[in-house]
Amino acid sequence: MATSSEYKEFLERVRELSTLEQVGSLLDWDQQTYMPPGAFPQRGQQGALVAGIMHERLTSDRMGRLIRALQRQPLSPDGEVIVREVARKWRKASCVPGPLVREITKTASLGFEAWQRARKADDYKSFEPYLARMIGLKARVAEHVGYDNRPYDALLDDYEPGTRARDVEALFKRLIAKLVPVVKRVLDAPVPENAVPPGTYPLEAQREFMTTLATGMGYDLSHGRIDLSAHPFTIGAARDVRITFRHKEDNPIYAIFPIIHEAGHALYEQGFQERYFGTPLAEAVSMGLHESQSRLWENVVGRSLPFWTYYYPKMQRAFPRFRKVPLEAWHREINRVSRNFIRVDADELTYNLHIALRFEAEAAIFDGKLKTREIPEFWNERFEKYLGLEVPDNASGCLQDVHWSTGNFGYFPSYTIGNLYAAQLWDAAQRQVPGLEDRIAAGDLGAFLGWLRQNVHRHGKRYDAAELMKRVTGSPISEDFFIRYVSEKYGRLYGIKIKTAPKIAVRR
Amino acid sequence: MATSSEYKEFLERVRELSTLEQVGSLLDWDQQTYMPPGAFPQRGQQGALVAGIMHERLTSDRMGRLIRALQRQPLSPDGEVIVREVARKWRKASCVPGPLVREITKTASLGFEAWQRARKADDYKSFEPYLARMIGLKARVAEHVGYDNRPYDALLDDYEPGTRARDVEALFKRLIAKLVPVVKRVLDAPVPENAVPPGTYPLEAQREFMTTLATGMGYDLSHGRIDLSAHPFTIGAARDVRITFRHKEDNPIYAIFPIIHEAGHALYEQGFQERYFGTPLAEAVSMGLHESQSRLWENVVGRSLPFWTYYYPKMQRAFPRFRKVPLEAWHREINRVSRNFIRVDADELTYNLHIALRFEAEAAIFDGKLKTREIPEFWNERFEKYLGLEVPDNASGCLQDVHWSTGNFGYFPSYTIGNLYAAQLWDAAQRQVPGLEDRIAAGDLGAFLGWLRQNVHRHGKRYDAAELMKRVTGSPISEDFFIRYVSEKYGRLYGIKIKTAPKIAVRR
Repeated sequence: MATSSEYKEFLERVRELSTLEQVGSLLDWDQQTYMPPGAFPQRGQQGALVAGIMHERLTSDRMGRLIRALQRQPLSPDGEVIVREVARKWRKASCVPGPLVREITKTASLGFEAWQRARKADDYKSFEPYLARMIGLKARVAEHVGYDNRPYDALLDDYEPGTRARDVEALFKRLIAKLVPVVKRVLDAPVPENAVPPGTYPLEAQREFMTTLATGMGYDLSHGRIDLSAHPFTIGAARDVRITFRHKEDNPIYAIFPIIHEAGHALYEQGFQERYFGTPLAEAVSMGLHESQSRLWENVVGRSLPFWTYYYPKMQRAFPRFRKVPLEAWHREINRVSRNFIRVDADELTYNLHIALRFEAEAAIFDGKLKTREIPEFWNERFEKYLGLEVPDNASGCLQDVHWSTGNFGYFPSYTIGNLYAAQLWDAAQRQVPGLEDRIAAGDLGAFLGWLRQNVHRHGKRYDAAELMKRVTGSPISEDFFIRYVSEKYGRLYGIKIKTAPKIAVRR
Repeated sequence: MATSSEYKEFLERVRELSTLEQVGSLLDWDQQTYMPPGAFPQRGQQGALVAGIMHERLTSDRMGRLIRALQRQPLSPDGEVIVREVARKWRKASCVPGPLVREITKTASLGFEAWQRARKADDYKSFEPYLARMIGLKARVAEHVGYDNRPYDALLDDYEPGTRARDVEALFKRLIAKLVPVVKRVLDAPVPENAVPPGTYPLEAQREFMTTLATGMGYDLSHGRIDLSAHPFTIGAARDVRITFRHKEDNPIYAIFPIIHEAGHALYEQGFQERYFGTPLAEAVSMGLHESQSRLWENVVGRSLPFWTYYYPKMQRAFPRFRKVPLEAWHREINRVSRNFIRVDADELTYNLHIALRFEAEAAIFDGKLKTREIPEFWNERFEKYLGLEVPDNASGCLQDVHWSTGNFGYFPSYTIGNLYAAQLWDAAQRQVPGLEDRIAAGDLGAFLGWLRQNVHRHGKRYDAAELMKRVTGSPISEDFFIRYVSEKYGRLYGIKIKTAPKIAVRR
């Protein structure tokens, strides 16, 4: 079919929106890496102006007319995906009234400050009014956006398009039931000793080794770069995808796993097809799928024995202090499991328990079953139930995360969804890539990256997450892949026997 | 008088344009410092989109209506300046038709490539059609913009608002007549020996010393930063003004004078008043005045004995090889005068002769008196007349500069105008700041910077260049300050007697 002039204009506008988004990303990147401290106020103005122009253009009358016209025209398969995805974004951006958006932005800014003070002072009461206000505003957003069943669905949709609270609930329930006994079994085993030799690991040596790791994974420095920042992140799109790492002088672990994690995100972005740049066909399916890529690399590959069989000798050359630490001790070191109050410090096993309780709280809040004043009690009860620890204060409990203060309800589940996708993709890759672990042990990460590119990356948003997972792995999303992966891995590592989940039948 | 709602809206729009300009500057800065090479194509799109949005907003109907309404309203003195200057920009942006602007952009891009090839191959003929085409386009711009007398005035106005070719012509004629004999006298004296000790000057030591110099001048790192780039530049505005330096491992001079030059530009930008940020009251008067600031610091201060009396011991600590080089040898080294075909390698004395011939060529071109095919001959004749050297090829002659290939006619005179302003401002500062040179020799550059801030920087575009110079120095612009400055300086340096211009009578 012929490409209509409306489609051409639409596509040009879509690509311009993407270009503006890239500009916004550079403002963010600079702010977190090189921006002089005194430039803070004007950077805020710059970011807000670019975001405002993007919103104006996305919700313009002309864009609306074009989308409606194209929805009635026959389109190529690519065109269908692009129109579908842009229409989704357009609808969401158009249906929330401007004053509500601005009120959320203002409340987020005040809420963020209030949260920082409250966490420092361990004073939940002082934060509660801001949290309550934000919940009220987001509930109004949900009403504007609309939902089939529960308001929380509308919020979840920002991060996991098309996913319903009901399904996540069922998934988490099954996961928790199977995971809690595994965690308990592992936590009862003796904890491995600290294997990191004390001393100084200079920044430049760390930077060099992080570059070795990222480029070894396939990260392309001609379309990216590696810098330092307080919190590691991946940013950018198309031909310019940048990552950062953090630096602690006394332990390179604080740089290593974040850089593998961020390079995993970046490989996804660098794996899109050039001809689709600037369109949803060169965008991540969902937050969960993005997270699956970072966690596959960070945890499943990056904390595995085959990976370090190849990279540990390089690391020992980079940081000679490690010459006296055997590979096996290092492997145990980077897979230590422990009870921890703080999510961001948690290992891959307990991490999902942290997430589960946050999801349960969010769902209960937007179902109207959990009042803000009841959150600390809810939190602490669940925490003790899942992790067997009594939370000593709210700073180590429900005040630890920034997300709620800025209104990011629906974000947390993506972390665990990403972990589950990662284990499920890994299972498929093991079956489909001959000699996968041997190749990794020989330093050949290209076979695995090639598989990811072919099966996941190159599709962009062509399929939603459920469909993509089924196509790639032959199975709908299931917690069993993760349970089996951790049972086997930690069973071996800790020399204990964990009853693993039954082998999952997959088509293919 | 009350501030009208139109004025408020106008000011908000003006500040948004400035914010967009800052965004564009960050794109440029990143491109020249840290951008991955493969990001080049999309950076072009980003820059073009931001520039397009700026143009759209500046020339919008609403902006036009606001400007016309405000031109009929009584305004505060500040408001008058802001409306006057934005109206000037608006008029210029509005009166050139879009297709002509786009044709110039395209021709500039093609012309730039053609120029690069032509310079490499020393093949003027291959570049001539592009040059002719660009001249034709800029002549059409001049017709659209309008002029009193000569089309070239309209182009000059982009860089030196309100300046007429006639006046520049007269100024350059007087300057040349007085400068050529001085140059000849100096060039006949024996050239000082090379004083830079051979060896390696590592990047980190150079970076540290460049930071010492720039911050010693008063450059504020909390609102700026110093990076490496192939060509040094200053970029940014308001609370974020960044500079760069270049690095040659075997000679720190290649970093030192560019960093002093760029810090001079940056001090001007950092000297505007915060309450005017985002308006013409926090913008440079003209290209020439901007250049006066960089050249005052680079040449008049930065190549002076008092400056190095304080900084040379620091430099000897930074680069210990210089311990065996006496201060006087270093002072002669950094003030070497020589015949040189290339403008950017020229010293402060001969530099203006390079500029004079370019200005004469430009003026003749737009007066219709010089055809493109005659440019090489014109160039070579003038060069021999002013500098006493026969130009061996066009690559060392009329093909050496990028400016004409991209249509920047009217830019060159600013360099020399900047040199003349610099000498004239220095003369005033010496009279007005007690013990100026002693203070500089003691490392106190604050007295001089304070004088510049008070007399030049804080005014932004309140006065035009002619009025500002008269207010600050008590005299209209004159070449005599420069002639006297170089005659005294080089007479002393080379131990020769140069007949200096008579003392200039100034009011005050």
